[in-house]
Amino acid sequence: MAVSPAIEALKDALKALPGVGPKNAQRMAFHLMERNREGAQKIADALNHALQAVTTCQRCNTFCETEVCEICSSDKRDRELLCVVETPADLQAIEQVGAYQGLYFVLMGRLSPLEGIGPDKLAFKRLGEIVANNAISEVVIATNITAEGETTADYTQQLLAPYDLTVTRLARGVPVGGELEYMDQRTLAAAFKDRRRAE
Amino acid sequence: MAVSPAIEALKDALKALPGVGPKNAQRMAFHLMERNREGAQKIADALNHALQAVTTCQRCNTFCETEVCEICSSDKRDRELLCVVETPADLQAIEQVGAYQGLYFVLMGRLSPLEGIGPDKLAFKRLGEIVANNAISEVVIATNITAEGETTADYTQQLLAPYDLTVTRLARGVPVGGELEYMDQRTLAAAFKDRRRAE
Repeated sequence: MAVSPAIEALKDALKALPGVGPKNAQRMAFHLMERNREGAQKIADALNHALQAVTTCQRCNTFCETEVCEICSSDKRDRELLCVVETPADLQAIEQVGAYQGLYFVLMGRLSPLEGIGPDKLAFKRLGEIVANNAISEVVIATNITAEGETTADYTQQLLAPYDLTVTRLARGVPVGGELEYMDQRTLAAAFKDRRRAE
Repeated sequence: MAVSPAIEALKDALKALPGVGPKNAQRMAFHLMERNREGAQKIADALNHALQAVTTCQRCNTFCETEVCEICSSDKRDRELLCVVETPADLQAIEQVGAYQGLYFVLMGRLSPLEGIGPDKLAFKRLGEIVANNAISEVVIATNITAEGETTADYTQQLLAPYDLTVTRLARGVPVGGELEYMDQRTLAAAFKDRRRAE
């Protein structure tokens, strides 16, 4: 006997959240209805507002609420540098570090033959136009160091080969604080291959 | 530099979900905006519908969308049996087993001095009225076997003591499929204390 069709529908809808299965969705639905109706209203309102307000920057393709995002319209950024990332979340992670002062380009995904995501599903065409029409001296490819991210990086590198610019990729290696004993083999192999001259 | 105030607000709102911290909320917000706007709309709509439609049964206090829930208005249930549970989720778990055919009463929470939840915050008054005004022969206290659940059960038991009815509590013991070697000490102690005559 179903407690309430509206709660069943809510459970079902919550499964759209990443990493949330049926059990977790049920727990969330009951928690919100039992103990936090105010929070539930806040989520519904925030979702509706974001769906209406959030669009993508016409230049770099990241999320923003205006035509061109704050970073692209800032006069404090180095416009000769372009960093290619998979998603707005990656862009934000890099911004939080504060070590990069150039512009970005967001592909909005990664190449994934298994999920049917080919080059035409990502913003490569626009990336080519930007590189062709702007005085860019270096493109830093900052995709994830995963199989799909590396494939995306390889494709991006090929795409940029005809242009007169430097293409770089993020350093792979042992993370800061990492212990060699516990490092996986591929990371250790990459750290050896990309070893740098001691200064 | 914040990507979008609307996404920041969404991240913040998603933290109302149980077990969701800032990192997870960010992942959910980006996932929905990047890859599942349809799912996001479904969640917003389901929340709004549930907030508007879901109320509590006037008799047993569980969630329902009518004045009296399906179980309370069914003529197939044993009206002399009353099972007291903490939440509608507990009621649903018991219903899914199908081993109980009586009515329910939902306290909507558990006693928790640490969280400031005293007896006045739960539906004990209504429970007293139901027991006083109906021909109930047995009340099964089915609160969780946690510190707070057991406190709630003790309080319920005291509340029901003046009435002429049998009060029972769920059996505590080794779960079916459980191995003694891996059982915690308190469960094993309870299983010994509540041991039953071999049949």
